[in-house]
Amino acid sequence: MAGRGFMQWAANCRTVRLDVGVATSEIIVLGQTLCTDLSSITPESTVTFHTVVGHEGDITVSVKNESPEGMGKDGGVTKMVAYISVATHSSKIDDKEVNFLFVDKSGDTIGVATLRMTAFYMSLDVDCDRDGVVEKNNPNKGSWQWGPDGHGAILLVNNDCDDYLLEMDPEHKNSKIDGPFDLEDMSRMAVRVRGPETLPEDCRLRMWVRPDDKERLGIFNLSDIEKRRAGGVVLDELGNKHIIGPKAGYLAQVSYDLMMVRRDEGETLFAVEGLKYPDKDFNGTLRIHLSLLKNVTVPVFEDTVIFRMAPWIMTPNTLEPIEAFTCQMKKSENLDFINDFKKVVEAAGIKVNIVPPYENRGDRWMQDEIELGYSELPGKKPMPVVLDSPRDRGLQKFPKGKLLGPDFGYVTRYDQNEFVNSLDSFGNLEVSPPVKVDGRTYPMGRILLGSAFPTTKYGRRMMRVVRDFLYAQQVQPPVELFSDWLGVGHIDEFMTFVPAAGGKGFRLLLASPSACYNLLRKLKNDGHGDVLCFEGKTRSGESAERSISDLLDDSNLKAESLQCQNDIDWNRDVMKRELGLDEGDIIDLPQLFQLEDGKGAGAYFPDMVNMIVLGKQLGIPKPFGPMIDGACAFETNVRSLLEPLGLTCHFVNDWDSYHLLLGEVHCGSNTRRKPFDFKWWNMKF
Amino acid sequence: MAGRGFMQWAANCRTVRLDVGVATSEIIVLGQTLCTDLSSITPESTVTFHTVVGHEGDITVSVKNESPEGMGKDGGVTKMVAYISVATHSSKIDDKEVNFLFVDKSGDTIGVATLRMTAFYMSLDVDCDRDGVVEKNNPNKGSWQWGPDGHGAILLVNNDCDDYLLEMDPEHKNSKIDGPFDLEDMSRMAVRVRGPETLPEDCRLRMWVRPDDKERLGIFNLSDIEKRRAGGVVLDELGNKHIIGPKAGYLAQVSYDLMMVRRDEGETLFAVEGLKYPDKDFNGTLRIHLSLLKNVTVPVFEDTVIFRMAPWIMTPNTLEPIEAFTCQMKKSENLDFINDFKKVVEAAGIKVNIVPPYENRGDRWMQDEIELGYSELPGKKPMPVVLDSPRDRGLQKFPKGKLLGPDFGYVTRYDQNEFVNSLDSFGNLEVSPPVKVDGRTYPMGRILLGSAFPTTKYGRRMMRVVRDFLYAQQVQPPVELFSDWLGVGHIDEFMTFVPAAGGKGFRLLLASPSACYNLLRKLKNDGHGDVLCFEGKTRSGESAERSISDLLDDSNLKAESLQCQNDIDWNRDVMKRELGLDEGDIIDLPQLFQLEDGKGAGAYFPDMVNMIVLGKQLGIPKPFGPMIDGACAFETNVRSLLEPLGLTCHFVNDWDSYHLLLGEVHCGSNTRRKPFDFKWWNMKF
Repeated sequence: MAGRGFMQWAANCRTVRLDVGVATSEIIVLGQTLCTDLSSITPESTVTFHTVVGHEGDITVSVKNESPEGMGKDGGVTKMVAYISVATHSSKIDDKEVNFLFVDKSGDTIGVATLRMTAFYMSLDVDCDRDGVVEKNNPNKGSWQWGPDGHGAILLVNNDCDDYLLEMDPEHKNSKIDGPFDLEDMSRMAVRVRGPETLPEDCRLRMWVRPDDKERLGIFNLSDIEKRRAGGVVLDELGNKHIIGPKAGYLAQVSYDLMMVRRDEGETLFAVEGLKYPDKDFNGTLRIHLSLLKNVTVPVFEDTVIFRMAPWIMTPNTLEPIEAFTCQMKKSENLDFINDFKKVVEAAGIKVNIVPPYENRGDRWMQDEIELGYSELPGKKPMPVVLDSPRDRGLQKFPKGKLLGPDFGYVTRYDQNEFVNSLDSFGNLEVSPPVKVDGRTYPMGRILLGSAFPTTKYGRRMMRVVRDFLYAQQVQPPVELFSDWLGVGHIDEFMTFVPAAGGKGFRLLLASPSACYNLLRKLKNDGHGDVLCFEGKTRSGESAERSISDLLDDSNLKAESLQCQNDIDWNRDVMKRELGLDEGDIIDLPQLFQLEDGKGAGAYFPDMVNMIVLGKQLGIPKPFGPMIDGACAFETNVRSLLEPLGLTCHFVNDWDSYHLLLGEVHCGSNTRRKPFDFKWWNMKF
Repeated sequence: MAGRGFMQWAANCRTVRLDVGVATSEIIVLGQTLCTDLSSITPESTVTFHTVVGHEGDITVSVKNESPEGMGKDGGVTKMVAYISVATHSSKIDDKEVNFLFVDKSGDTIGVATLRMTAFYMSLDVDCDRDGVVEKNNPNKGSWQWGPDGHGAILLVNNDCDDYLLEMDPEHKNSKIDGPFDLEDMSRMAVRVRGPETLPEDCRLRMWVRPDDKERLGIFNLSDIEKRRAGGVVLDELGNKHIIGPKAGYLAQVSYDLMMVRRDEGETLFAVEGLKYPDKDFNGTLRIHLSLLKNVTVPVFEDTVIFRMAPWIMTPNTLEPIEAFTCQMKKSENLDFINDFKKVVEAAGIKVNIVPPYENRGDRWMQDEIELGYSELPGKKPMPVVLDSPRDRGLQKFPKGKLLGPDFGYVTRYDQNEFVNSLDSFGNLEVSPPVKVDGRTYPMGRILLGSAFPTTKYGRRMMRVVRDFLYAQQVQPPVELFSDWLGVGHIDEFMTFVPAAGGKGFRLLLASPSACYNLLRKLKNDGHGDVLCFEGKTRSGESAERSISDLLDDSNLKAESLQCQNDIDWNRDVMKRELGLDEGDIIDLPQLFQLEDGKGAGAYFPDMVNMIVLGKQLGIPKPFGPMIDGACAFETNVRSLLEPLGLTCHFVNDWDSYHLLLGEVHCGSNTRRKPFDFKWWNMKF
């Protein structure tokens, strides 16, 4: 919709009223122009007038005759208007005076109107060069521009918890500075004022934000806190708190009156913390205003800075892993899996976190509860931030309880008016590597999430508030895929990305029934029709073993699998278009699907695309395919497709512990990755 | 925020799977390309292959080798992909066939993969040239562009009531076609399809909208209604109703399956009605999709049209009046006023509507209950639409009861969670004439509304939902003024616009205490200090008479008035900047203000800017100023300022009937004006 345009509440050209025989006192801020209608006060017998500028100073006075465009002096509508300004570089703040002398035809001065000005220098300053320095009156401070040539200050959502011994909530839930590390997460802002010893009585110097923004940021007066601390008070005992923001007082505060002014240029330093990510009703930009007010409420001058809230960013499989997560179930139920999993992590040379039963409470689906991303301020280390799914099963307390902490943020979205469904799990939320589409670049890729078709009335979709949140981050514009055809309904059941030498630097891997039937047919043609697949495996207490020929002859399985191929192909076409891929960027991995009774489709054997990708080390669900020449033919096929790309395939046994429960390796694990080298504010739109 | 990008749910390039020895049947829509991976099905001993296009037809087949960028055939990643398309102009819809023949080194064909295509032509069409004609497959139909060179179809919010004898609600509250006049308010849309006699069994031809849009429009199948009517059923008995929209069934419907197909090009005609104006959560554009679905839900082809909802538009004082409204109070209480008022209306040569006591229920503030605007479709007469204020006093039932009707629409915004305050009255809502500001043109002016400063915590503002509505209309971007300093708090207490010869074609009139004191001083200097103002008038039972000298000596009144001058000057500066005005465009009318106890400011004598403007005829509150040389000196002053502009001043006595109740002529009246000649869709952003 049409953005609600920002409007300044004080003009740079301000109307003042003078009177003959009177000295009028007015405030003038350096850079501002005062404007006064002389014709309305000119004595009747005046034939000319003079302007006399009293005191020394950089005062400019110009007088113009103003009448409606294209009209002369007819109808008495021409006005004589004087414009008075004081140069912005003026170092003098002493009283400045202008006298308008009205002279009659005999040369006598028949009246004098005097304007006495109290001059101020005032500036609200931020770091809009994104170099860690709060500049002085940067002309760009009131606007925000994307790109490497752009400008504009940035705020971080301060949602880590530096005071983690005392609290289990992200810091934006409180309004104090939890020590120096907390301060590190905030941006600096300065008020610089030079003016008279005291403000005129009915004047205020007021910092303020729009009512809509008062829950989105919190501002601390660092200079004031420092002064009080210098007076011997311990920081935490100060009740140091927001001067503007949700916890500034009993109610959220929108404004704060500054005590001032010094005749030398005083600087008051502020720290600003972000409290909310961009969202449906918040485009991410925040304005902070500094107004000089007359009559307590009427602004006579205004300075404005703009911040943009750093978005939450997801990390694709092509970024280097830092640490991996998985769950250990009670009674060592998934010990085989964990042992295989550890080997993959070890090969990747990263840390592994095994979440014990008392923390996972029987919930093995580590992928589904959380998505690990980050947020970043210029010149600072990016802060990892976990997005907590509305799913909330056994792992519900894990993200806040174990991840949230110093320099590890937490965010969630949940709408209690909607039912949670399986598509809300974050196995259904991925992000592509960087791509270029029709000349538009997505340097941090595009978010991918699974949905129902909008054409269907009763389809499952990810919770609206989560989708709104993802779209609002802007820097990884989402692509909605079709995943509702699957029983569980997660996009990681049919797709993943792997890093790869050459090409675009990655490949899209898709589960493919067609590829599987091609492979099975070839094996049969080569004389292996009787070889058993899934040897020694059971399903619902019965043997899962089937020969290649038997699989090929199962017309139900084939019909169901090829219908799934159809659904996957639909997603293939969407991704080709929305991510700018062609067939050369896509690799089909053999896979069969079956329809679970009334529940949609599921993998018929361990779903190989549902892998964990740790750099070049892949942890792939072990398919238990036909053993030919001493090797699983499915594994051989996958190796032949992926190893030429410089990848190493580790096959992880998840048959009993995950596959039969309708998930696989990816579903049961999670990965924290290095942030992009690319800085999000350098993105171009 | 980042717009949620529109995403097609079906690609123009669609993946299909072929197999050797198999004839695969697929649907192809003219204009679409099918894409198939031949390498995955190529028999091992193949050395070459041929493409044979069976039947006659405009079929194009091209085969490409696709490998990741910059990579050769290493790693077996090169794919041979065939692209098949049928020319869009193809007139034949017979089955089309392509055979891929795989040949071994001895020249023998060792396998054939056959693709049999059922070709369709399908198109969803609207009037995107804005000329009243539904074009055929206009390439612009999927986008919307502002401006005289722009394009894009338009919907009207169908909020009049053509069935007014039966209902008292705007039509969008029902879902039927209330006769031919109702149909006139709707836009046309056509589905054109040429294809096989019947759709393949699992296929659907489905029209659909996003779930968000299902309450914003309603679609009727006119062809179907016509067919049934031809079968002898009376229109109103058909239960003719939305096929998509809020009242399509028990629940709002998002989709509709079309019965089709004819071998000749069949056309099905639809009527689309708008139901909601653009608003905070609705940018005004609506997309309607037509999808060809496979497996009942999976789109294989998609066509999309876009509509924009015609905004609600306000009419400034510079537009010609059509009719005027005022209230007659019980016991002829305001008969003097009405007689004076009628004279102004008579001079303007327009109709006057005197709302009798049983309809106004003691509420004389006709300006405050409603704002009269309009909406417009290309090629049709603009439809007047009343915006009903959330104020709701005695006149509450007037807009629905007396204005809503055939070709007179009704809209309101109200939030029961907010308290109504005096700033919600539409004396606080005006619109400027067309203006140009720093090179940006506002050909329909800018909406003006009064607010509190955002710096104040407890200030009054217009109800959020009303402001959101006004901003969302886009074509008259609002400017918020400061009116909370006034007790009643309406911007019409200190400003109005009048048409005027020369210049920008209008002048801004501002109430001015300074101008009033200048005038009073001049009168005193000329020896009229003892002349009485407000002669014979009373206030709270006491005489209101005061001499010029007495007024000049009242230092309280002067201090209060000059503080008000300050507040008005602040608004003057905002309007100069936001409307691109200079002093030559502004005329100060003499006025004094006083502070009502604890309630803010109010006019001290009848507030002359609070006038009704009917073309060049002005109905100005009679100020009862000092009689000098047989004429009121205030009137003389105002005449001297306005009559040179070609305006006629009528002074209307509203002292007892409005002024003492804190309102004036403008507050007590309303005006319906001619729409702009300028068409809103020609606006440029």
